[in-house]
Amino acid sequence: MSSSEVPRGLVGSSIARSDASSIHIHGLDLCNDLIGGVTITDFLALELRGELPGAAERRLLDAFMVTLAEHGTTPSTIAARLTMLGSPDQLQSAVASGLLGAGSRFLGSMSDCARLLQDPRVTEHRAPSDRAASLIEIANGSVPGIGHPLHKPEDPRSVKLFALARELDAYGPACETIVAVRQTLHERTGTRLPINATGAIAAIATDIGYEWQAVRGFALVARTVGILGHLTEERRAPMGQQIWDLVEGLGDDD
Amino acid sequence: MSSSEVPRGLVGSSIARSDASSIHIHGLDLCNDLIGGVTITDFLALELRGELPGAAERRLLDAFMVTLAEHGTTPSTIAARLTMLGSPDQLQSAVASGLLGAGSRFLGSMSDCARLLQDPRVTEHRAPSDRAASLIEIANGSVPGIGHPLHKPEDPRSVKLFALARELDAYGPACETIVAVRQTLHERTGTRLPINATGAIAAIATDIGYEWQAVRGFALVARTVGILGHLTEERRAPMGQQIWDLVEGLGDDD
Amino acid sequence: MSSSEVPRGLVGSSIARSDASSIHIHGLDLCNDLIGGVTITDFLALELRGELPGAAERRLLDAFMVTLAEHGTTPSTIAARLTMLGSPDQLQSAVASGLLGAGSRFLGSMSDCARLLQDPRVTEHRAPSDRAASLIEIANGSVPGIGHPLHKPEDPRSVKLFALARELDAYGPACETIVAVRQTLHERTGTRLPINATGAIAAIATDIGYEWQAVRGFALVARTVGILGHLTEERRAPMGQQIWDLVEGLGDDD
Amino acid sequence: MSSSEVPRGLVGSSIARSDASSIHIHGLDLCNDLIGGVTITDFLALELRGELPGAAERRLLDAFMVTLAEHGTTPSTIAARLTMLGSPDQLQSAVASGLLGAGSRFLGSMSDCARLLQDPRVTEHRAPSDRAASLIEIANGSVPGIGHPLHKPEDPRSVKLFALARELDAYGPACETIVAVRQTLHERTGTRLPINATGAIAAIATDIGYEWQAVRGFALVARTVGILGHLTEERRAPMGQQIWDLVEGLGDDD
Repeated sequence: MSSSEVPRGLVGSSIARSDASSIHIHGLDLCNDLIGGVTITDFLALELRGELPGAAERRLLDAFMVTLAEHGTTPSTIAARLTMLGSPDQLQSAVASGLLGAGSRFLGSMSDCARLLQDPRVTEHRAPSDRAASLIEIANGSVPGIGHPLHKPEDPRSVKLFALARELDAYGPACETIVAVRQTLHERTGTRLPINATGAIAAIATDIGYEWQAVRGFALVARTVGILGHLTEERRAPMGQQIWDLVEGLGDDD
Repeated sequence: MSSSEVPRGLVGSSIARSDASSIHIHGLDLCNDLIGGVTITDFLALELRGELPGAAERRLLDAFMVTLAEHGTTPSTIAARLTMLGSPDQLQSAVASGLLGAGSRFLGSMSDCARLLQDPRVTEHRAPSDRAASLIEIANGSVPGIGHPLHKPEDPRSVKLFALARELDAYGPACETIVAVRQTLHERTGTRLPINATGAIAAIATDIGYEWQAVRGFALVARTVGILGHLTEERRAPMGQQIWDLVEGLGDDD
Repeated sequence: MSSSEVPRGLVGSSIARSDASSIHIHGLDLCNDLIGGVTITDFLALELRGELPGAAERRLLDAFMVTLAEHGTTPSTIAARLTMLGSPDQLQSAVASGLLGAGSRFLGSMSDCARLLQDPRVTEHRAPSDRAASLIEIANGSVPGIGHPLHKPEDPRSVKLFALARELDAYGPACETIVAVRQTLHERTGTRLPINATGAIAAIATDIGYEWQAVRGFALVARTVGILGHLTEERRAPMGQQIWDLVEGLGDDD
Repeated sequence: MSSSEVPRGLVGSSIARSDASSIHIHGLDLCNDLIGGVTITDFLALELRGELPGAAERRLLDAFMVTLAEHGTTPSTIAARLTMLGSPDQLQSAVASGLLGAGSRFLGSMSDCARLLQDPRVTEHRAPSDRAASLIEIANGSVPGIGHPLHKPEDPRSVKLFALARELDAYGPACETIVAVRQTLHERTGTRLPINATGAIAAIATDIGYEWQAVRGFALVARTVGILGHLTEERRAPMGQQIWDLVEGLGDDD
């Protein structure tokens, strides 16, 4: 089809443009500006915001993704391994199967937390304690990003991430808010819950200017990396068949 | 966009046509000819072949799907349950995750068997034993549709399906071929392997005129039904968390 | 692994049981009771409710699925075709890709409508108009299952489905409620919106005893059938490449 | 379930180990060694090979992924956009849908090329021209990684990648082989086809020691990044509805 046949006046993608000898992405020359010069993390920032990040932002994005990539055997990675058992030659199917479990229960909490931190009803307040009170009210008391079954009273990942944010001058109002949320909940309930890793990332990402909708993107790239780690282990030392055997045997008590 | 803006000369779908008061699918009136008058199995045949099936064909397609729907706890259904654990409100994600494991290892054997049965190098021979010899040679000795880890020396589903095919006058050359393949392998190896359910379905589907590419479609509809059964059980009596706990505990031998 | 190694006291699936010569599903013998005797629709009811349906229920379930299977070129079926273009040998990937688009915007309305119709705050009222008022209030005025961009003032599918429900003695309180909802909205707004097909199915499914969570299952089986129809057409008369060309050309107005 | 109930002697994942105050991944301390210290690319190498990469390897892996991430509007990214239209709140479903199209036709060529370059029947030869002849024979003349519809006679990405490999002392026997393959095909056919980006990456990845099965992993991480770019654009300037309208209008020539 020649381009003259294409209906006019319609919106197209403006991300990439190619001809025989060059490719431009968000206005940058792939071969001269990007390949060999930038990291995939830079490229992710370019895709999400339209421009390359500075050094501090890049380091934080890498820290986010390194934090989120690997959680050992989770429903996601087990599902990916089992999909590989049935479809061993289609790596993308196993990865997709793993990502589909990264829904409301696991990754939703991070974007939900970022959305609350960016809610105008929260950000309109000047004092962190007021922002915290407003956020807790909007969240009906159950704040995503707070609490962890294993890592308590502190999540060591959050401690590290906040230290890094301070070091890189990225610790701002959203970080103050989530810390105040934790403090307020402690005062109200008497229980000292940790800010978990998704809460810390939601806050820092907000402070460096990422929209809450973008935050789940970091998690999906990171999870893809983690799932690939499990699929690599599965290829070399398969667990899929024994998981199947175990589950099939459940309930056979005689 | 008005349709006058659409480029001409391009191919569109000719499956469905709607206006405010009627919907036609493959030329049939959805409300007057189909809803209330035909089954989803009839509709599947309409989608795959462009016309409604006769009574014998319908009964065989239902028999195929009923045979293929449920296999207890399999990698597919376990993956679907685990995806539901992470994304409990997105039933379609859990179903998709389960279908992705229906790849080469589980469902490939059925379409591979049908492809072999429809190979011109096989069908050119008149005698079943010649067709069988040719098929075995093309398959390099490893014939999909033959053998089963549990159901031996006979797969009771195949016995039933072939009886049904005979009753409905659908037992033809492809059925003869797969039976001859089994016999030839028995003579050559001394081991009497069963024709498994996928082999029986591949043969009967071939004899009633389905292309090998269509055969995997029956399996995907059937698997969707079976996965929904497991997800229903999972909703009422969840196993997902305990599967996670079990797998997480693997290898902790101290 | 022998079953004696399996941890005791854990919950297993109780859907299927097999030995070398027989397979039982929900207590029925697959080869003697099911294959050749029941349809895939019967089997779906068995999976969703644990028992085979009567003739009226079966006919309604088939009518639901026939209604929902095919909607022409939709985002779902286009996505499935494009996935087939990139992964032509993996039919299950294309189907899964299509199902993933059957989310909140398209299929959510049916289960949302069924959930509202089954809400105790709705069903506690005796008069249809009271149930309708309560449902509209809970739904904040925007009732899923009401309205259609093309089929107005009546959706011919709903007319047919309600007629069938009456014929089969399945027209009950939930049908009365959704009709009253439509009437109330008409009186309040002056606009006569149709009960669309998802609203009719949600109501009838509720009246024959299906939980709202099960309702999306009918849609997923039906959509699998419809997607297979489009993938069959795509295999014979491919549109994928031209869709790609069209979209790639968008915005090139010079 | 206590871990004492877990069956012994079974294989578990050895990737990650956690307790209340620390998390170890492939033996490294997540909080002290990884977060803030390494990039997601380092982490990917750790997942694929069990150890952190050196500077040259990291730079090449980033170059691979930056090269593979973004290809403008492709079947994958269009499918992802359409899935988002139907399921706008489930970013992971849209990403999964896009990845499912990254099958044999698009990404298979890279792992197929790497597999050929690592085939013992190829690597047993000392001279690049002999390796090339052997590879072409195994590939039956149609070599993945050679040829491109737009970028010819040179793919500028491959030129850049090979220059980077030389600069980083990573240009080795596999790179020599793919260059000799191209030369041999040129001599035999008279047509000078380019080594495309997937061919260059397959060769360099082989020379720095990656198994062919791992190579598709780079592509999947990169594609996840690229798909997220398109979904971000889709969120801000949606094309999905107009793509639907365009495709629905196809074939309406009257």
